[in-house]
Amino acid sequence: MPLEGIPEVVAGSDISELVISALESSKLELKDSDIVVIKQKIVSKAEGRLVNLDNVIPGRRALHYSKSQSKDPRLMELILQESVRVIRSGHGVIITETKQGFVCANSGVDQSNIGKGLASLLPIDSDRSARRIRKSLQARTGKRLAIVITDTFGRPWRKGQTDVGIGCSGIKPSVSFRGRADAYGYALRVTEPALVDEVAGAAELVMGKLSRVPVAIVRGVSYKRDEGGVKSLIMPRERNLFR
Amino acid sequence: MPLEGIPEVVAGSDISELVISALESSKLELKDSDIVVIKQKIVSKAEGRLVNLDNVIPGRRALHYSKSQSKDPRLMELILQESVRVIRSGHGVIITETKQGFVCANSGVDQSNIGKGLASLLPIDSDRSARRIRKSLQARTGKRLAIVITDTFGRPWRKGQTDVGIGCSGIKPSVSFRGRADAYGYALRVTEPALVDEVAGAAELVMGKLSRVPVAIVRGVSYKRDEGGVKSLIMPRERNLFR
Repeated sequence: MPLEGIPEVVAGSDISELVISALESSKLELKDSDIVVIKQKIVSKAEGRLVNLDNVIPGRRALHYSKSQSKDPRLMELILQESVRVIRSGHGVIITETKQGFVCANSGVDQSNIGKGLASLLPIDSDRSARRIRKSLQARTGKRLAIVITDTFGRPWRKGQTDVGIGCSGIKPSVSFRGRADAYGYALRVTEPALVDEVAGAAELVMGKLSRVPVAIVRGVSYKRDEGGVKSLIMPRERNLFR
Repeated sequence: MPLEGIPEVVAGSDISELVISALESSKLELKDSDIVVIKQKIVSKAEGRLVNLDNVIPGRRALHYSKSQSKDPRLMELILQESVRVIRSGHGVIITETKQGFVCANSGVDQSNIGKGLASLLPIDSDRSARRIRKSLQARTGKRLAIVITDTFGRPWRKGQTDVGIGCSGIKPSVSFRGRADAYGYALRVTEPALVDEVAGAAELVMGKLSRVPVAIVRGVSYKRDEGGVKSLIMPRERNLFR
C-alpha cells in the first residue's frame, strides 16, 4: 500500500511523526508485522545529507573522472568522497564501492527529487537510521514493525534498475533454505532469498518515481526478526568475484 | 496472489491449461491486465528441458572446472554447454553468460524441485515461452494478460538471491523516465525501473521456495504492452563494464 500525504521532508524532520500523520489522514493503521518501506531520499533529507554543489571544490581525481565520464566535477568530487574505491568507470557511468560497503553507480549520490543545485548523499548508516525510525514508530503505535530503507540500484548485466534495501531493522534481510529439502528430498545448497530486496522491489511498484510517495506499507510477508541489517548482506571481500 | 493447485508438470504439459484448472479450483478469475508470473522450473519441465545426469559425458573443460569448483562433472558439462563463456569462477561458484545472454550462476542449470539424478536447463527462449502461454491463456479467458517467467539469480556484491524475469510477453519490461521532470523540475537521466524484475521479486514473496506454488498473479500494477521481451533488458556488450 502506498502511503500518501507525506509532506516535504527537511533536515531535522522526524520521519516517524510524518508517517503517523500520513497514516491518520489516509485512515490507515499499522498492524503487527507490517513492513514500512521508506525511500532513501527522505531519510537523507531528514538527516541533513543534502549538499549544495556550490560549496564543493573538486579535487584532481574528481576533475579527471568528471572529464572522462562527462559529469559535473563537483558531483564527481562528492561521489569520490563517498567511496572507498572506484570499481569501474565508462560510458558516463562510475561504479564505486561506498563507505557503507555498497557497490553502485555514483556512490548513491544523486540529484533527483531534491531541488536545483543540490545533491543527496546516502545516510551514513541506513541500518541505524532504520532502527531509529522503527523504535520511534513502535513506541507511537504499540505495534511490532519492520523498517526497510530503499534505494534504486542498477545491475551490471541488465538495463534498468530495481529498488533494493540499503538499511533495515526488525527483519532478517534474507531467508536461508540451505540444507532444507525440496518436495523431492533434494537438499537446497545456496537458496537464500534476499527478502528485503524483494520487499523493496514490491514496494517500488506502488511508489513510483515521479509521484511523491516515499513510503509504502508491505503487509502479509512472513519474516524473521533480526538486527543484522542490510550490511549483513554485503558480499565479503574474499568471496567477491567482481572487485 | 499465489495460485495453489498446480499439479506436477511433465514434458508436454500445457501450462495454460494447468493454470486455468488451478484458477477454477481456487475460485479465482483472471482480470484484464493481470500479470501471471510463472517459475522457470515448470516451464523447463513442460518444454522437456530436464536432463538425466547419467546420460551426460563430461568433457575436458568440464572435468577441469568441476575439480576446481567441486561440482559434479556431469552438471559442469551441462553448465558449459548452456553457456557462451565463463565470466568468473571461484569459491565453488561458476558465473557464465548463457546462450540466452543472461549472466548468472551455473548457466541457470539446477537440481532443485525436479527429482534425483536430473538437472533442469533454462527454456531455450523464455520470451517465446511467455508469448505462447500468454496467447493460450488469453484465448481461454478472453482477458488481456501479461506473462513473466522468473528465475532466481544471485547478485555479484550481495549475498542472497532475488527472482528476476527471464522471459515476458504482453508487458514492457522496463519503464523509462528519461527526460521526465521530477517534482522540482529536475530532468531524470537514467531512471528506468526494471518492472518485470520488481514484479518477479514481489511474486516470489508469495511463492516461496519449498511450497509447490510455481504461479502467482500480480494485479494492479500499471504497465505498457510491448513484445521486446526480457532480452531487451540485456546489457549490450559494448556497455557492459563487467565482462
